[in-house]
Amino acid sequence: MNEIIQSCTSCNHTTNLAECYPRCPICNEPLNVSLIESGSINYEATWSDPFYIRYRDFYPYLDNTIKISLGEGLTPLMPLENVAKELNLSSVYVKNETLNPTWSFKDRGSVIGVMHAIKNGYSKIGTVSTGNMAASIAAYGAKAGLKTYIFVKGDMLPEKVNPIAIYGPKVLQVKGEYSVLYEQSLQIGQEKHIAFINSDVPMRIEGSKSIAYEICEQTGFNVPDFVIIPTSAGGNFRGIVKGFVEFYKAGIIKKIPRPVCVQSAGCAPIAKAFLNNEDTISHFGNTSTIAPAIGNPNPPSGNEVLRLLKRYLGLAVTVTNCEIIKAQKQLASYGVFSQPAGAVPLAALYKLTDELIPHDSSVALVTTGGGLKDSSVLGKHKLDAEVINISELSYKL
Amino acid sequence: MNEIIQSCTSCNHTTNLAECYPRCPICNEPLNVSLIESGSINYEATWSDPFYIRYRDFYPYLDNTIKISLGEGLTPLMPLENVAKELNLSSVYVKNETLNPTWSFKDRGSVIGVMHAIKNGYSKIGTVSTGNMAASIAAYGAKAGLKTYIFVKGDMLPEKVNPIAIYGPKVLQVKGEYSVLYEQSLQIGQEKHIAFINSDVPMRIEGSKSIAYEICEQTGFNVPDFVIIPTSAGGNFRGIVKGFVEFYKAGIIKKIPRPVCVQSAGCAPIAKAFLNNEDTISHFGNTSTIAPAIGNPNPPSGNEVLRLLKRYLGLAVTVTNCEIIKAQKQLASYGVFSQPAGAVPLAALYKLTDELIPHDSSVALVTTGGGLKDSSVLGKHKLDAEVINISELSYKL
Repeated sequence: MNEIIQSCTSCNHTTNLAECYPRCPICNEPLNVSLIESGSINYEATWSDPFYIRYRDFYPYLDNTIKISLGEGLTPLMPLENVAKELNLSSVYVKNETLNPTWSFKDRGSVIGVMHAIKNGYSKIGTVSTGNMAASIAAYGAKAGLKTYIFVKGDMLPEKVNPIAIYGPKVLQVKGEYSVLYEQSLQIGQEKHIAFINSDVPMRIEGSKSIAYEICEQTGFNVPDFVIIPTSAGGNFRGIVKGFVEFYKAGIIKKIPRPVCVQSAGCAPIAKAFLNNEDTISHFGNTSTIAPAIGNPNPPSGNEVLRLLKRYLGLAVTVTNCEIIKAQKQLASYGVFSQPAGAVPLAALYKLTDELIPHDSSVALVTTGGGLKDSSVLGKHKLDAEVINISELSYKL
Repeated sequence: MNEIIQSCTSCNHTTNLAECYPRCPICNEPLNVSLIESGSINYEATWSDPFYIRYRDFYPYLDNTIKISLGEGLTPLMPLENVAKELNLSSVYVKNETLNPTWSFKDRGSVIGVMHAIKNGYSKIGTVSTGNMAASIAAYGAKAGLKTYIFVKGDMLPEKVNPIAIYGPKVLQVKGEYSVLYEQSLQIGQEKHIAFINSDVPMRIEGSKSIAYEICEQTGFNVPDFVIIPTSAGGNFRGIVKGFVEFYKAGIIKKIPRPVCVQSAGCAPIAKAFLNNEDTISHFGNTSTIAPAIGNPNPPSGNEVLRLLKRYLGLAVTVTNCEIIKAQKQLASYGVFSQPAGAVPLAALYKLTDELIPHDSSVALVTTGGGLKDSSVLGKHKLDAEVINISELSYKL
């Protein structure tokens, strides 16, 4: 195996892993830990061990003496037989990321990011987020006993702030342009020695790899033809693709699934650039989406997602708010209640099947976070509940 | 092993398992599936298999051709080192049940109950619930494709009804006395051939057994001295105790943890009867608790919980709303954000240690459901969030 370093996803400039750099100091594109190209699954790990123990060969840079876990990962992969049948697909699976400790996939990257920060001598961590990642970093910072800073938007409502603040971090509601805040956090992090575990730092990508590893195991290494991923900053997309590539290079799987980037029509900087055959994304401008968890108009990993789509024969697609709401209800009708962002892969599947996803394909859909995180959106559904008197009960059934 | 039947927890009258009886037809006390007294853990089960595959020897009555799962169970058991140190206990663990498919322990009983109903020819299921169980049965009914009836209180707010209705069941908001509704549901179920999987039916107890099995595995079979259980209807308490007893009788563990029933001071029918040394509970009358998930004033399994407390040297205790709120915040400060009901064991631990739970004991705390289920209660916390301008950022850190 090659030496483990960080290298720029665009210009290949390399830096030392210990530096906790978030971006390439030369071209400002995101960094990647170099590919882990050999290793096997640790089948001695039990169901109760963290995923990074099970897949420890693919996390060789972790320090074995630092073990933080809230029970993240190892989430269910559930077949949606009805959908497969309806669309003439060989199989459709949903990877249910809502069963994580803070009820979103972000916990995978948080646990790796926090352990790496501790290894490198940080006693303070932080993040910039509007939701899932904020709660996740707050929880892992609490678990690890680190001073934790969470920057959120200035106008965030208490009902959104409280489920983050409950873990006890320092929450700063910052008035000003959100994408400026992201850049500022990186600068402040270096000045004040705070490890900002933002959406696309290398260790967060490393955490997301495990989604791919688990899908490999859960399909008996007969991986799906396509994997559809809700995409905002682009970090989770990058991690999932990296995971499949690593297992492929290690000889564990025989092919790499084609990745599909799905975005909201009201905030689709990556899909728009892909469909216009551009090499770089542009700021999407004003956004309007019912799925705020995928509402980043200027995704820091956007260009790298475009590169990966090209390299691995990917697809990109947008879905409307109406389609998202419909998909959220449909997913719940199979027992999976996801926030709107997590339902976009199902909406995308209906759009892509036939033309771009051929019949008899197998497909995995990746969710994001739990439905209780955006409960106000439930008012948009026509939900059935009838008020009756107890005496009418027998007659109503 | 003896023949598997249902028998009354009080008068020992036996009935056939297929009958899906909820209560003893002779004395109206709850029924139990008879103890499974031999078997071993199926270590060939993977992390992705349902718990009832892993512990299949202890579910011998399930039909192998019926397999429903949303990925329930196999939840984390997390050490709380700080609490153990502070209280001079040898170890304190929290069993985090908020990582279930509908974010509460109810999913364990729902999956067993639904599979048993299908095996016995039911195509319709239902439940009476104010929260966790309603969402759980709605989700499993959806997954299994069964017609599903959910009876909730007539005055339930839309924000509470919507996360149940999203799964697509028939929700009936029934005006009238809630405990009457419970009894009526059982009668209607028999008339209309609907399997009502209420809080203390035998198969729900069977599901809850797995919490105990998992704690055994997760502690390396060195089970804790005490297990503290939030108690409402009493079903989860019964299931956890039954699980430990079965593993003990099968020779898998060497002792049975002493069970602790914890209730809210504003709704404590079981704790009150226990502390007054009574053999049966009485209706608690008007209740007032910040933890509605443990707000049953007339628990159907209350008398059986009293019997189990006596048989296994248990304890009972109440905690106030203030103590619950404090414990919820403290638990979150270790990374576990539970609804108020799930924090009561931590509050109880502080009350019991020294006098009733001796120093150097080991203790497991069982949570109930996720904190996002009762987000309105977060307003009761003094949570730290500061609004600042982006220009002040560097100065604030």
